[in-house]
Amino acid sequence: MTSYSINHRLDPIFNPRGVAVIGASNNPAKFGSMFFNALLDTKFPCVYPVNPSEEEISGLRSFKTVQDIPGPVDYALISVPISRIIDVIEDCGRKSVKGVTIFTAGFSEGGTGEGMDLERQMLKIAKDYDMRLIGPNCIGIYCPSSSLAFFPGLSREEGSIGFISQSGGHAEELARQASKWGLTFSKIISYGNGCDLESTDFLEYLGEDNGTKTVALYVEGVRDGPRFLNTLRRVAGLKPVIVWKGGTTENSARAAASHTGSMAGSYAIWNTVLNCPGVIRVQDFEELGDTLLSIQCLKPPKGRNVAVVGAGGGFSVAVTDILERAGLIVRRFAPETIDRLNEIIPPLGTGTKNPIDMSYFLMQDISLLKKSIEIIADDPNIDIILTHISPDFTGNDALSDTFISKKQVEIVEILSDIKAFIEKRFSEKPFAVILNAPAKIEYEIDRLEINETLLEKGISVYLSATRAAKALVNLSLLA
Amino acid sequence: MTSYSINHRLDPIFNPRGVAVIGASNNPAKFGSMFFNALLDTKFPCVYPVNPSEEEISGLRSFKTVQDIPGPVDYALISVPISRIIDVIEDCGRKSVKGVTIFTAGFSEGGTGEGMDLERQMLKIAKDYDMRLIGPNCIGIYCPSSSLAFFPGLSREEGSIGFISQSGGHAEELARQASKWGLTFSKIISYGNGCDLESTDFLEYLGEDNGTKTVALYVEGVRDGPRFLNTLRRVAGLKPVIVWKGGTTENSARAAASHTGSMAGSYAIWNTVLNCPGVIRVQDFEELGDTLLSIQCLKPPKGRNVAVVGAGGGFSVAVTDILERAGLIVRRFAPETIDRLNEIIPPLGTGTKNPIDMSYFLMQDISLLKKSIEIIADDPNIDIILTHISPDFTGNDALSDTFISKKQVEIVEILSDIKAFIEKRFSEKPFAVILNAPAKIEYEIDRLEINETLLEKGISVYLSATRAAKALVNLSLLA
Repeated sequence: MTSYSINHRLDPIFNPRGVAVIGASNNPAKFGSMFFNALLDTKFPCVYPVNPSEEEISGLRSFKTVQDIPGPVDYALISVPISRIIDVIEDCGRKSVKGVTIFTAGFSEGGTGEGMDLERQMLKIAKDYDMRLIGPNCIGIYCPSSSLAFFPGLSREEGSIGFISQSGGHAEELARQASKWGLTFSKIISYGNGCDLESTDFLEYLGEDNGTKTVALYVEGVRDGPRFLNTLRRVAGLKPVIVWKGGTTENSARAAASHTGSMAGSYAIWNTVLNCPGVIRVQDFEELGDTLLSIQCLKPPKGRNVAVVGAGGGFSVAVTDILERAGLIVRRFAPETIDRLNEIIPPLGTGTKNPIDMSYFLMQDISLLKKSIEIIADDPNIDIILTHISPDFTGNDALSDTFISKKQVEIVEILSDIKAFIEKRFSEKPFAVILNAPAKIEYEIDRLEINETLLEKGISVYLSATRAAKALVNLSLLA
Repeated sequence: MTSYSINHRLDPIFNPRGVAVIGASNNPAKFGSMFFNALLDTKFPCVYPVNPSEEEISGLRSFKTVQDIPGPVDYALISVPISRIIDVIEDCGRKSVKGVTIFTAGFSEGGTGEGMDLERQMLKIAKDYDMRLIGPNCIGIYCPSSSLAFFPGLSREEGSIGFISQSGGHAEELARQASKWGLTFSKIISYGNGCDLESTDFLEYLGEDNGTKTVALYVEGVRDGPRFLNTLRRVAGLKPVIVWKGGTTENSARAAASHTGSMAGSYAIWNTVLNCPGVIRVQDFEELGDTLLSIQCLKPPKGRNVAVVGAGGGFSVAVTDILERAGLIVRRFAPETIDRLNEIIPPLGTGTKNPIDMSYFLMQDISLLKKSIEIIADDPNIDIILTHISPDFTGNDALSDTFISKKQVEIVEILSDIKAFIEKRFSEKPFAVILNAPAKIEYEIDRLEINETLLEKGISVYLSATRAAKALVNLSLLA
């Protein structure tokens, strides 16, 4: 099978015996130094700085050329002026490097014939040496299992999400923001102009990668549409594939052309291409992260009927509007459910038909949250359970900071208990939390802390109803 | 003119000589006490607690009945058990109170004949005494100019936005979150079930109120559609009216019925009703606040062509997608503009056609931001100028905290300078900032601080491209 041979071929690039960083220097502000420091940071065992003007970089011997390096080099990162690029590629080829990431920009994305010529020249050299190119105009590979990283300071935790990104900015941003979402990655690949390896190749590779359970893709354009479509269909049959298409309007397509030299293609065609089972389309960065979180934490629900529990009548109406506009259904509970709820929830100023709004009673007795969720989880017409809370509860000034801190601890505990209960008794019903913005800025910090704590406990938490709605609708597409 | 007489009639309620709080007590957790404490907090001169079981509340004599109060009482807040409501309304009527806010819930929103009967009885008594009712099931009036407030701790700053809300929760939330958006209000009115005065009455009142330059409305349902529509058209001819309709789907309409007893009506009808000049429809709380901010800070642009300046190629594509999907146009700059930009912005890894992505160069020389905006503001095809920044710039770990803090100060200064420049030279072109989420949680605090500082300087700032897009499209509807 072709796919297998390609798989084998890319493996040494993702698990290299040695890595050369061409353009590393003693100036820490240079990108070459950042790539180099990233590998020192992960303690990658065999990393070699290459810079003809330096003797030593960060205590390691600097090599004039890649060919001067004594050990094997399977992967190289190139950050040199464009005038030197051809020599450097040739140097890598002679050293039998398997794959190189070219950070250097100024190729086809500049829209000049010269830039395109240079890409063709690089490709020819690479072909001659049986070497693959990633880029140019990209930051390459982050792979915690093999200690590869494009920048210092990234998490070293291995996860099961693979992200392929035509944009280096998005690749970097998702890698850096991962902890904010509690996301962990098998691999993140930035491939820029994709003059050789492009989204299709990496999609194929991650489709076969056992460590990757979910694939996410940010793509501006592809060279071979039918090959991309075939690969996408095949991989989406094996694992969820989330696609964020950049450049969906005339002007953003123009911006994409300036960015990675891509022909973004008509959005109508892309819509058709992406309309296949197992493929989830997202529209922006937040939706990408939120959707990955839902897939990482939750099982797809059997339907789209959602129960909503939280404080406030006006916010219950608002949340219902948001969830239903997004495609979820906040259907009325079964009569038995309402009867059981009415036994435990005080009648005045509350609603028990779905949403459950407990207004101020929740603040007085947080256990009502768990008691009511135990009842609604039992309703056969409910597929998803969603609660919305805010870190300062009502924002009411009569509540002291001490009282609120105590309630925050209580709410995190009870949400943990609820998660455990749902997993034990109703594991097919996803349970998620909307953590609304507080009324007062000072509680935003508490919000971030609660968010982090809930994520650590494996609870899916979203920072608005709109974001929760999109993530859960996307999750439901995998059922 | 009828409207004038109504105006005169409501004026004493908003500027009362004395206020009675019926149900105030020495238990600070009770709502009656919160309403009472709110007026102590604003130092409202003549506030009277009414509670037959207390002798003294917060050092003030407690009255058995409203009639026992020696001075005039124009406005009363009622928070008593529903069984006492008729007696209390009668008591207020006998005292010649002009208007009462009924916080007590359990009326028509409960869906029982009994609740509706009680509303009818209250109305009859009110009519007999020529007294107006606000509510029931609401929190009444916040009016900084006359020191009325529904809860303690609200800003006492007078502004020019009037907000009429069927939901007490939304009224409270917007009052509390005002400082997060830099918004200031003339009046906020929560009217709940609206058994007597409802949105139409307050719309008419704020339409004629000189202190109110912009009216915002959260409405679930109205009793008299044609009267509402006439009033809306008239007021929207005088000042911008922003309408947030709650209960737009079958199930959220059901939730609205449980919330305020409203018949939410078909969304198709509402869509027609709200499709009139000067009326801006918003769909959620964030869009409401963001739109109010844009109207408070900016003049409506002459068109929808937006120039985007900020860091990163991938994010330039993403922002363009978001802005254009929302209805703005990120059109290519005029050739002269591009030529002038190319003179100042380094060529590699940047884009100058719109968006301007300066990638990492901006970090090195923040003055590029001002220089480029001076050029694009001069482009006759550009109507709106938008810049996107993040509090940690690239999130790059090679940047020290000290370096980032210094850059943050520089960016706030340069944004202030840009605002001053635009106002002086291109005052018809709104200038706004997107303050993106940082990669690292620890910079979220910086983000909130930068947000606050920019708002203090009168700069419109939005916490995502999606939110900025909606607010600016809404603003453009007023041109």
